[in-house]
Amino acid sequence: MSVQMKQADFTSHMGRALDEAKAAAARGEVPVGAVLVGPDGAVLAQAGNETRQRHDPTAHAEMLVIRQACAKLGTERLIGCALWVTLEPCPMCASAIAWAHISSVYYGASDPKSGGIEAGPQIYTHKTTHHKPELYPGIAEAACSVILKDFFKSKR
Amino acid sequence: MSVQMKQADFTSHMGRALDEAKAAAARGEVPVGAVLVGPDGAVLAQAGNETRQRHDPTAHAEMLVIRQACAKLGTERLIGCALWVTLEPCPMCASAIAWAHISSVYYGASDPKSGGIEAGPQIYTHKTTHHKPELYPGIAEAACSVILKDFFKSKR
Repeated sequence: MSVQMKQADFTSHMGRALDEAKAAAARGEVPVGAVLVGPDGAVLAQAGNETRQRHDPTAHAEMLVIRQACAKLGTERLIGCALWVTLEPCPMCASAIAWAHISSVYYGASDPKSGGIEAGPQIYTHKTTHHKPELYPGIAEAACSVILKDFFKSKR
Repeated sequence: MSVQMKQADFTSHMGRALDEAKAAAARGEVPVGAVLVGPDGAVLAQAGNETRQRHDPTAHAEMLVIRQACAKLGTERLIGCALWVTLEPCPMCASAIAWAHISSVYYGASDPKSGGIEAGPQIYTHKTTHHKPELYPGIAEAACSVILKDFFKSKR
């Protein structure tokens, strides 16, 4: 894959995830958005957080796109797929990414308060995590974190 | 709550979880079962693993009962509720339990290979895990682990 193609992906996939985060904020949800991309580069699923409207604490954006993509493909394993998400996944989502055997995770802002990759339990550093995706942190970091900051500022 | 009542709960709630584990095995699923009990002691939800039949890597027994109970109560928070499960929850489920603010977790067999409480990421030992349930491991441990051992033996 050429560098040029990759840059286009960065803009389009993370742009789509950012749009999902903004839509989540408009619904009163914590503004995190995610996109699941197949091995051929096609978008399989996209979602923002829906924990409040669904009354479901597991309805993080990452979980929703994993479940949607698996349902679409009729499989439990998203081998060769990439997850794009605006915030560092929490331990629940990081572990679900491992169970789904997702190949790469591109994320925006780090989450020192509740993250599960760099922060706290550091899910991918343990022998008991049987699949570890390639990690690309810091993608469009400023844009991803400003949405969260604005949301929590407006809630105070 | 009297000791006698607690022993009756141990038998009935973990018995129900064991029945769900056995039903999961019969469907070709990894035999783990879970029961979600409300603050009044009533069973809110029960399920066995359904990852294969649902094509959903997040469909662990614990996740299913959390989602079912939250949908039933119209809330994201299962405060005062207890989760009974035949196997030590994985990091995904342990983190979901924290997000749901479940008060107590009673579990059967430990899972040194893929667990998330005693094993690997030890989810509840981190400052970034904002809720920690009371833990009661080793409930009906022998019965819970023999179902798993028999299942994996039959798959060889």
